[in-house]
Amino acid sequence: MEPVKIPPIAISRLSVYARHLALLEQKGEEVISSGRLANMCGGNPAQIRKDLAYFGEFGVRGVGYYVKELLFEIRKILGADKKWRLGLVGVGNLGSALLRHAPFSDRGYAFVAAFDGKPDRIGMKIEGIQVEPLNSINHAIQEKRIEIGVIAVKPDLAQSVANRLVRAGVSGILNFAPAQIQCPLHVCIENVDFSLKLDMLCYRLTTPESNR
Amino acid sequence: MEPVKIPPIAISRLSVYARHLALLEQKGEEVISSGRLANMCGGNPAQIRKDLAYFGEFGVRGVGYYVKELLFEIRKILGADKKWRLGLVGVGNLGSALLRHAPFSDRGYAFVAAFDGKPDRIGMKIEGIQVEPLNSINHAIQEKRIEIGVIAVKPDLAQSVANRLVRAGVSGILNFAPAQIQCPLHVCIENVDFSLKLDMLCYRLTTPESNR
Repeated sequence: MEPVKIPPIAISRLSVYARHLALLEQKGEEVISSGRLANMCGGNPAQIRKDLAYFGEFGVRGVGYYVKELLFEIRKILGADKKWRLGLVGVGNLGSALLRHAPFSDRGYAFVAAFDGKPDRIGMKIEGIQVEPLNSINHAIQEKRIEIGVIAVKPDLAQSVANRLVRAGVSGILNFAPAQIQCPLHVCIENVDFSLKLDMLCYRLTTPESNR
Repeated sequence: MEPVKIPPIAISRLSVYARHLALLEQKGEEVISSGRLANMCGGNPAQIRKDLAYFGEFGVRGVGYYVKELLFEIRKILGADKKWRLGLVGVGNLGSALLRHAPFSDRGYAFVAAFDGKPDRIGMKIEGIQVEPLNSINHAIQEKRIEIGVIAVKPDLAQSVANRLVRAGVSGILNFAPAQIQCPLHVCIENVDFSLKLDMLCYRLTTPESNR
């Protein structure tokens, strides 16, 4: 059987479902209807059923979904049932904020190392993590078994930092620098670019006929 | 004539083209081929031509694009040829980093006010902007003609902050809180959610057959 191609947007929606299910679990709710879940997530029930159908059969007709069970399954699908070890490069304003970003640790992501190129930042401690120089990247990534490198340096340094991370053996990169990074095919990259989102917003404000 | 529906991803790509054109302009380059521009942006020449064709005819056959002219036109399309006035709500770690985020100001976005709910943060000055209490939002948004509200508060406060911003008259919201915000239809929202990107990355790392 040909594997079904799952659209990335469906994966993003699964993350959102998981987030709301976790809140429901915290509140001690055991069952939720697809209608109510859709309402919480800002979608519609048919979409939820379709997104979940890529991965199997979930939910009970006439009852809804068992919160704990569905959350467990979605986490497994997303790979969020394990702890991921992150290494940060660049502890400027944004990087420091990322180290302190509570939603990351809430969801099983743990920064275990931080690196910076500026001598005056080496040795600083942020959230219990001591900042190391760039030339420690190779050793630390391997020793601390870091799987994901997070890049929060200036755009002109982003590619060389990515190269170091790839050489050290990370398999994924989350890039916050507004720069196009090239990596070998076996490394996954996701980009977070605030300015693009702001540009998009301004385009929509400038062009009222655009899809709001 | 029916207006052509322009895919949001094309708009994101225009932003990326503009970013690289601005770099070329700084370097004093006058002309660029679609091939080289595509190379810089990590795309392909046909895509660039297609994206630009939504908005008119640009470039000269056998020559390429005039850097300054194309940059001017794309900025006009994106609404980036004007200064946008931003108000930030939430000056925690992330919010403070946003106020100091150089790429914003480089591109015509200016924070002109900042608000927070915590008494000990009121009066603080960050990048020359004095932090005001939440109940100043209405007055300040109007007085300072703020068009875009940037939300960097905890998820459980995001909706009430959005309501205040909408009542005060912003037309766009850039939301960094990992929460689903409901707004009236005349207000545009863009969400920046780091955790979703990280979830997506981990899904791709967990599922090697997924589209890398």
